[in-house]
Amino acid sequence: MTTNRVAIFLQAKRKNLVMDVDGVLTDGKFTYSDQGKFSKTFGSHDSDALKIISESVNLLFISADKRGFAISESRIHDMNFELLQVDAADRADFIRNMKLEASTAFIGDSFTDVPALREADLSLVPQGAHPLAKAQADIVLSSNGGDGAVAEACILLFPELFEWALK
Amino acid sequence: MTTNRVAIFLQAKRKNLVMDVDGVLTDGKFTYSDQGKFSKTFGSHDSDALKIISESVNLLFISADKRGFAISESRIHDMNFELLQVDAADRADFIRNMKLEASTAFIGDSFTDVPALREADLSLVPQGAHPLAKAQADIVLSSNGGDGAVAEACILLFPELFEWALK
Amino acid sequence: MTTNRVAIFLQAKRKNLVMDVDGVLTDGKFTYSDQGKFSKTFGSHDSDALKIISESVNLLFISADKRGFAISESRIHDMNFELLQVDAADRADFIRNMKLEASTAFIGDSFTDVPALREADLSLVPQGAHPLAKAQADIVLSSNGGDGAVAEACILLFPELFEWALK
Amino acid sequence: MTTNRVAIFLQAKRKNLVMDVDGVLTDGKFTYSDQGKFSKTFGSHDSDALKIISESVNLLFISADKRGFAISESRIHDMNFELLQVDAADRADFIRNMKLEASTAFIGDSFTDVPALREADLSLVPQGAHPLAKAQADIVLSSNGGDGAVAEACILLFPELFEWALK
Repeated sequence: MTTNRVAIFLQAKRKNLVMDVDGVLTDGKFTYSDQGKFSKTFGSHDSDALKIISESVNLLFISADKRGFAISESRIHDMNFELLQVDAADRADFIRNMKLEASTAFIGDSFTDVPALREADLSLVPQGAHPLAKAQADIVLSSNGGDGAVAEACILLFPELFEWALK
Repeated sequence: MTTNRVAIFLQAKRKNLVMDVDGVLTDGKFTYSDQGKFSKTFGSHDSDALKIISESVNLLFISADKRGFAISESRIHDMNFELLQVDAADRADFIRNMKLEASTAFIGDSFTDVPALREADLSLVPQGAHPLAKAQADIVLSSNGGDGAVAEACILLFPELFEWALK
Repeated sequence: MTTNRVAIFLQAKRKNLVMDVDGVLTDGKFTYSDQGKFSKTFGSHDSDALKIISESVNLLFISADKRGFAISESRIHDMNFELLQVDAADRADFIRNMKLEASTAFIGDSFTDVPALREADLSLVPQGAHPLAKAQADIVLSSNGGDGAVAEACILLFPELFEWALK
Repeated sequence: MTTNRVAIFLQAKRKNLVMDVDGVLTDGKFTYSDQGKFSKTFGSHDSDALKIISESVNLLFISADKRGFAISESRIHDMNFELLQVDAADRADFIRNMKLEASTAFIGDSFTDVPALREADLSLVPQGAHPLAKAQADIVLSSNGGDGAVAEACILLFPELFEWALK
């Protein structure tokens, strides 16, 4: 059935790929100094891969982290995308609305993402996602968040765009 | 006997969940710049889980780290809780006093936590805790500190509050 | 054939060792604060090993990361080397030009490095390199980027310079 | 023979424990910002353990890292010890001199530490030490640098001081 859901997503003419930031584009951790939330850690493969698929799919980046929003936004802007604040409680609705426009895949990592993972046409989680999120996903990626998970999803969903890098 | 101690804790009407910060809510590490202790690393699942259980249990956060207290406090305040300074030598007494009020579980990670782990009605340690702390604990969580250990404890002790996320 | 390519490189009179910075001298990650890209993480063995081999080989350090260039340059300058900006799309050409001067080995880690890895006389990748880069490399090092991968390559290619440290 | 060397060290009336900072008290990594070397990462168990053994052994902390010296010193001072700058090339001599005063154990992690590891009465390395250092050591600790390696050495060499934490 997962194979089916992948095939249906790939055959859709219009596609959305929605992804959470913390735990998906980052390793799910953040540092605090005595001044508050200070930094998040991102990996180097994801932005290269997203750039390559960006003309074939509508990319949406969402975060529920209010205090770390400016940190995440700083990274997403450097990648030339926009960051939307979508709280955990509103994510299933957000995905439902996106489905009105196009077939919608979602990459999340938290147990709070479970309703949105259920709602998506195709759900993916990084290897290090929370067990309750992993149990819900169509696809458990083999890479961790912030360590190639998003690049892996890009190559999995749009393999023809990466053929030049295959041996 | 561990199963018994879990059951007794769960049946108690009034419950305290006391947790250390370093190595429990963090990965037990901290960075130094040339200006001194600069940052600690926290994970994203714990605060979501603590928020969910916060009406069913009295949550207490303690730290013995004087120089890093402002860093830890900054995080605990962002989660809308208070941080108490309780030195290693005073922790067993602290737990003993808390037991006068309610059944008291403690999550620690260091060999200096051993007397407090012994004193608690239920003792838990993250996967990456010090071996001497692990040898003492009722429950060794499968997640590391700062990487979901506290969220795992929340789901373990209050599973009914997370049923919406089960498949 | 890999053994052959190593032997041919080692026998060359003039040698270039070109290496990418992110994912090779670093762990491939970077932190963001709300002010933008803030830091990268390097390991302690690599600079000691590079210093030892620096009279036996022409060392070249390249980076495609524009926003993090000053961070990488800061480290490379502390090691007393220069950092060149060479975009992913120009790397195969860069290697081709370097081959006109000397036998040229390249250490990269990303799928965007595949054309340059193909072009090099000898290609190496850290253990944690992207799978598409690993599939292309002559040698997959057993150490990760920022955790001894470059030191391992130095010892592998110039073992006679490290004999004093062998038991 | 290792057992013998441990026994001889333990029986000595006067003992020195010399340890490197990078890769022993830290994870061997450091971050760079665009302003240069910015931070190093330390663990929480080591200082508690060192405090406990500090009356039974002469503790010496050494570093060869000039640019990161102020960072390391900041941490060592917070632990109420002094940091000495001892370059890699001078370490074997440093150990030799220390041996004139007392039986001297050394914890190092780099291939540049090999001569000093050879010179020490007892040599220890963290689990994640460089392979050439591991091959030379009397004892390979099971913990990594910055993640309990020094605490493990303290408990191994002075078990009687940690009996209160044994089950």
